[in-house]
Amino acid sequence: MLSKKVTVPVPRITDRKVRKLLLCGPGPCNLWPSVTEALTQPILSPLCDEYFRIMEDIRNGLKYLFQTQTDLVLAISGSGHAGMETVISNLIGPKETMLIARRGIWDERALNMATRYGINAVEVRIPFTTTFNLEQIEDELQKWKPTALFITHGDSSTGTVQNLQGLGNLCHRYGALLIVDTVVSIGGVPFFMDDWGVDAVYASSQKALSGPAGISPVAFSKRAEMKINRRKHQPPFYFDIKMLAQQWNCYGNTRVYHHTMSPPLMWALRRSLQEICTRTLPMFWEQHATITAHFCKRLEQNGFELLIPKAEDRLATVTTVILPKGYDYKEYITYIRDNHNILLFGGLGPTAGKSLRIGIMGVNCTRETADAIVNAMIDALKNLKKCSL
Amino acid sequence: MLSKKVTVPVPRITDRKVRKLLLCGPGPCNLWPSVTEALTQPILSPLCDEYFRIMEDIRNGLKYLFQTQTDLVLAISGSGHAGMETVISNLIGPKETMLIARRGIWDERALNMATRYGINAVEVRIPFTTTFNLEQIEDELQKWKPTALFITHGDSSTGTVQNLQGLGNLCHRYGALLIVDTVVSIGGVPFFMDDWGVDAVYASSQKALSGPAGISPVAFSKRAEMKINRRKHQPPFYFDIKMLAQQWNCYGNTRVYHHTMSPPLMWALRRSLQEICTRTLPMFWEQHATITAHFCKRLEQNGFELLIPKAEDRLATVTTVILPKGYDYKEYITYIRDNHNILLFGGLGPTAGKSLRIGIMGVNCTRETADAIVNAMIDALKNLKKCSL
Repeated sequence: MLSKKVTVPVPRITDRKVRKLLLCGPGPCNLWPSVTEALTQPILSPLCDEYFRIMEDIRNGLKYLFQTQTDLVLAISGSGHAGMETVISNLIGPKETMLIARRGIWDERALNMATRYGINAVEVRIPFTTTFNLEQIEDELQKWKPTALFITHGDSSTGTVQNLQGLGNLCHRYGALLIVDTVVSIGGVPFFMDDWGVDAVYASSQKALSGPAGISPVAFSKRAEMKINRRKHQPPFYFDIKMLAQQWNCYGNTRVYHHTMSPPLMWALRRSLQEICTRTLPMFWEQHATITAHFCKRLEQNGFELLIPKAEDRLATVTTVILPKGYDYKEYITYIRDNHNILLFGGLGPTAGKSLRIGIMGVNCTRETADAIVNAMIDALKNLKKCSL
Repeated sequence: MLSKKVTVPVPRITDRKVRKLLLCGPGPCNLWPSVTEALTQPILSPLCDEYFRIMEDIRNGLKYLFQTQTDLVLAISGSGHAGMETVISNLIGPKETMLIARRGIWDERALNMATRYGINAVEVRIPFTTTFNLEQIEDELQKWKPTALFITHGDSSTGTVQNLQGLGNLCHRYGALLIVDTVVSIGGVPFFMDDWGVDAVYASSQKALSGPAGISPVAFSKRAEMKINRRKHQPPFYFDIKMLAQQWNCYGNTRVYHHTMSPPLMWALRRSLQEICTRTLPMFWEQHATITAHFCKRLEQNGFELLIPKAEDRLATVTTVILPKGYDYKEYITYIRDNHNILLFGGLGPTAGKSLRIGIMGVNCTRETADAIVNAMIDALKNLKKCSL
């Protein structure tokens, strides 16, 4: 009898109730109610017309989101890191050089990935509270003659936004492709793939798009596509953009099964894009800029110091804030979570132990949320002071 | 003004209503209602205690599901193909040999992946309506002295189940590791990782577990773990099991952030495992065996021919059926979808144009479903005969 052979006993998995928090770290963000609802839409077979229409909706939404007319746009079935690895492994071959403009922790990840593929990864570093200017980049392009430059648009570990204007032209002048991480910027901060000459971009669903993690939009320019078509190396199967382009019918001529995508995540991404299309990008960017400016102003009025000195370097989706002396970051965050039901994050990488990271984005990007956070922060300052002194 | 710069217009993404079908192909399967509900549970930060408890529940459930006491068990954030690539890329280095016991299309995929990593992939083939015996495998192990044998337990392209008893011992005698694909068998067919000496296994969530695709359980034996710890090659970052083991706290000593997992898919997998624990594996296996036997009997009574001649080679989750002469498979499937709201699949790879593939598994594994399918098939035979003759 089969039952006798079971040697590992049944574990106790009982119902778990968890509190729903207002998620105001650098991500994940809360979901739009419509996105939560979209998660429960019917499961579809990966090879039916209805599914193909969902995929087309997503591709059209992503073209708008990235502001691109490129054909090679789709979503990877994985987190933002899967998008990052897709871009690097498809675009750059072993022994080719990738220049990494490093200012936060995600650039370190790009370095880690690149070395796995035998890519010659070189870095240029600046103080983590600043961003790059074109001259700094040009010096390095001249020096290294890289196949590609990797740069992060919004950096969630430091709370900075990199000005990308002029960078595509500069890279192309030196024969380099421009790769941009927009995980924490896309949707919340202006981004123009075609106008800015970006050759490869990836994003994530759980930040300003207010969707669940697990699906990562990517796009490649015509220039990047040509590089991919000429390549001699093979990327991982799961990330192979040539095969994925066939599954996603990027060229309008084929639908070839590659892997089974996750219907709830597809429905959810589609719905997030619908929410953004309804608002329009310029309005949504404006909303993030206005609310975060209001948030920063109120913080400074109440004695908090912003980590990033220059206003133009500050990211509209994630703000880094220094606490007055004498406070423990962890204790502070716990107090606000337990007493105000708001989740803020501590620093990460270069900002660990040096700042809070506060995300006001997507569905949470409202004046009410901004005010609630400031009020909670003031309250924590008041109540914890007694404990800390 | 920012708004002037938008060059790609807003696409029309409007609400889409799709019909909910009874999904009776080889997967994806419909969801348990409790799993659909679980998808809407709160989003959690990837680094909070509540999330860690969800991860622990999943690991405990997977140990039961795979029948293993190994520490190295977790879920990959991707489809079953991501699980396949995780196992191959972590376990086998360039120039090492992987022997593939090929009888269906998934073995072709394993071959495709292996060659990308410079692995020397060799195959042994048999007619696709049969399964391997130990002697056939032993001959090849002797001949190739491979690092690992890759074999599929349940094969959804042919509808066969491979007997795995004795295979682990045999492989180990020749110094080979045993890798098993359980994507379409796990939960629905008896599987004993430890007792059978399986060294690496991966599965998928959208088959007998009746969850959404997008998360792939994997487990490695102590022997496989030692091989991984000694390896000199680097797998892709996203699939690096050493890093994932730290994120999943497999050794009870650390929680290191690797990537942001998808909370809805984690909640869903946890709930699928809970459903299986409630039923217990022996009962759930018995249910699949009984219902499918009933289904096959009714098919044969009504003049249908089963593709797999030997009863012991037939998979309890997916049945392959030959239509009487004169019917077009595509037309037949479309008729049943449109008139009975049931989705059956045609053949794939070796069975393309030669059989139907009918999945009765997970939440759909009931006598009512089996009968509804048979009745629909009889009805289609009756109504389409007129058109086809």
